Amino acid sequence: MRIDEGALQRHLDELYAIGAEAGGGCYRPLYSEPWAAAGDLVQQWMKDAGLAVRRDAVGNLCGRIEGTAGGKAVVTGSHIDTVRRGGRLDGALGIVAGLVALRAVTAAHGKPKRALELLVVCEEEGSRFATNFWGSRAIVGAIEPEEAQRVTDAAGLSLGHAMRECGLDPGKIASAARDDIDVFVELHIEQGAVLEASGAALGIVSAIAGAVHLEITVTGRSDHAGTTPMDLRRDALAGAAAMIQAVEAIAAALGRPAVATVGKVRVEPDQINVVPGRVVFTVDLRHAELSGRRALEERIRSLCGTVASERGLEIEIRKLHERPPVPMDAGIRDVLARAAADAGVTPAPATLVSGAGHDAQVLAGRCRVGMLFVPSIGGRSHCPEEATDPAHLALGTRVLARALQLVAY
Amino acid sequence: MRIDEGALQRHLDELYAIGAEAGGGCYRPLYSEPWAAAGDLVQQWMKDAGLAVRRDAVGNLCGRIEGTAGGKAVVTGSHIDTVRRGGRLDGALGIVAGLVALRAVTAAHGKPKRALELLVVCEEEGSRFATNFWGSRAIVGAIEPEEAQRVTDAAGLSLGHAMRECGLDPGKIASAARDDIDVFVELHIEQGAVLEASGAALGIVSAIAGAVHLEITVTGRSDHAGTTPMDLRRDALAGAAAMIQAVEAIAAALGRPAVATVGKVRVEPDQINVVPGRVVFTVDLRHAELSGRRALEERIRSLCGTVASERGLEIEIRKLHERPPVPMDAGIRDVLARAAADAGVTPAPATLVSGAGHDAQVLAGRCRVGMLFVPSIGGRSHCPEEATDPAHLALGTRVLARALQLVAY
Repeated sequence: MRIDEGALQRHLDELYAIGAEAGGGCYRPLYSEPWAAAGDLVQQWMKDAGLAVRRDAVGNLCGRIEGTAGGKAVVTGSHIDTVRRGGRLDGALGIVAGLVALRAVTAAHGKPKRALELLVVCEEEGSRFATNFWGSRAIVGAIEPEEAQRVTDAAGLSLGHAMRECGLDPGKIASAARDDIDVFVELHIEQGAVLEASGAALGIVSAIAGAVHLEITVTGRSDHAGTTPMDLRRDALAGAAAMIQAVEAIAAALGRPAVATVGKVRVEPDQINVVPGRVVFTVDLRHAELSGRRALEERIRSLCGTVASERGLEIEIRKLHERPPVPMDAGIRDVLARAAADAGVTPAPATLVSGAGHDAQVLAGRCRVGMLFVPSIGGRSHCPEEATDPAHLALGTRVLARALQLVAY
Repeated sequence: MRIDEGALQRHLDELYAIGAEAGGGCYRPLYSEPWAAAGDLVQQWMKDAGLAVRRDAVGNLCGRIEGTAGGKAVVTGSHIDTVRRGGRLDGALGIVAGLVALRAVTAAHGKPKRALELLVVCEEEGSRFATNFWGSRAIVGAIEPEEAQRVTDAAGLSLGHAMRECGLDPGKIASAARDDIDVFVELHIEQGAVLEASGAALGIVSAIAGAVHLEITVTGRSDHAGTTPMDLRRDALAGAAAMIQAVEAIAAALGRPAVATVGKVRVEPDQINVVPGRVVFTVDLRHAELSGRRALEERIRSLCGTVASERGLEIEIRKLHERPPVPMDAGIRDVLARAAADAGVTPAPATLVSGAGHDAQVLAGRCRVGMLFVPSIGGRSHCPEEATDPAHLALGTRVLARALQLVAY
């Protein structure tokens, strides 16, 4: 099978030019003009490749080759939306590599036994509306009633209104649900630096870590910074600092793939000469296994409680959000490993957990899922610096094509 | 000497009612209507007490009894402005106690040898304009050229404009400078909990700690909270948390009167699922002695630098502000100790450092200064809960009156 590396790079450049921002990067939020233009471009590529094109009720695009034996479809693809100042590869790679892989496999082997499909998911990032996995949730029938009316963007426009502006009918969302997918496999950039650090050219994802988001409020007493001796203080920030240190130390001690991050901090009253009386901070914690994540959460809760009681502070821990970790299908992982071996990938692909969320975690409710990662240079993602060695992009595409061949032929 | 405890409480109540805020506390910012009304009230009290009243170019009020022997004046008083939601005693106590003390000492002993004066300083808190010690700086001739034109309040009004609205001429500020004060002694609430914790009913201030304000910027690398393993991060917030802990530990280890406070924190990008790339925080550090403060600052700079280099973070430390510690006059401290002994204060007054700034630190450039502190219940100040045991208020006023007698008769 010959992978068209020139087309791979050219199509990535063409997509990256749509929604280009002045300061670098591009932005293609759901149901925006750049989003629609990008969809039109991919639709043209699909037609040029001889795929049958279909657009569903929420704007997911499918380019399909029917199989000779019928049955459920083998699907690859990714999302077309981006974050603000997004990079060239996140989402775009899975679409472009899927297209190039489908062209390669059909050029080399003709019509598949099972239907092959390129899926362009309309939204995954949640960068315009405070919801994400909109496209894949529509496919598994997990859009909530009234969600399109309820959820609004920063300008106050509802998701439903934005759909109608793109010629889509919010009343038909339910029709996007499907039960005809057997396998979903996606090539994506790692968005971290694990592969780069390990020297591997390719990674096979074992699981997508679900995130727990906690909001921790620490209450002490606001005091005059000049008149209150250190031993008479109940400084909420000094306590929160000890907790932030503990969060980091617990995750580091548990080791990979445990991660815990304090990303947001608000100090009250936030004045240079006043001892802080209250601090609110968030913790994002993730692990590939539910038991590991529970251990992480329990230790963090316990240690923060201990710090608070040692310092005479009050603490309140609120769970904002929780998504379960999702294991990738064992059979598909084996297929991906065999495809990598067939493609001569040495050293063997690394096995790693995806800390970031992906559509595969949603689609896993309805089909067998698997993901391939290629290294991100410097681990950079969601920024204009997002990049991957062209040789790694070609290798990932080659392995994807071979995996599609193994499953669909 | 009989101290009129009823008048003390009544006058405090009357002042507290001026500028009362809906949620509790009062607010009398410089050159506002409540500020002017409070000045009018005190002026009336001065006249009723037979004092000769004078208002200087910036709005400081003086009520004076001439001395039989001439020479420089013996002055007591405090500031009439307040912070937002200010309490009943900060500033107000020094004015009301000064009035009651002057009435008591003249009622008991007649005309003094040296002129006695009640000084109502127009502004000390800096709560309306981003400048403070406006009144005492005018008295020592330390207002900067163009300062009245340059400095504006939150509404954009210049200090000079606000002066004119109160019938004051900014062109005459220089005329407020005086060189005819020998002694300035002030009764003030402690605004901290040192006296309360030690069980002392009275404190004699040894020095006013000057503050150094530092702004520390910690730069790491912003990363995806899900995809970046703990060991590959350069988390600016985890580093800043270690530094905030170090700031507290260093001040605690140096012991009283060293204090160091991190009051403001800003995290970038401040998103729940992003490892912070930059954190900016402030340090307020104070000590009664310059050598102690330098030691505090040096240790903080050194330890923060060590934390940064251990974690691969960049650090930049900027000095925003520096005021030197000001020792109180040794002779006046002796007078206050003798006055306390004469008034039968047991146990003997505590000696303590003022962590907060006061007009005495500015006036110290031109005259001999001393300060008496009474305990703040729970250490509370700059809030509606600000309170002192009435017996302590009366005791402080009695010692003040005796000290004025010792110096002026």
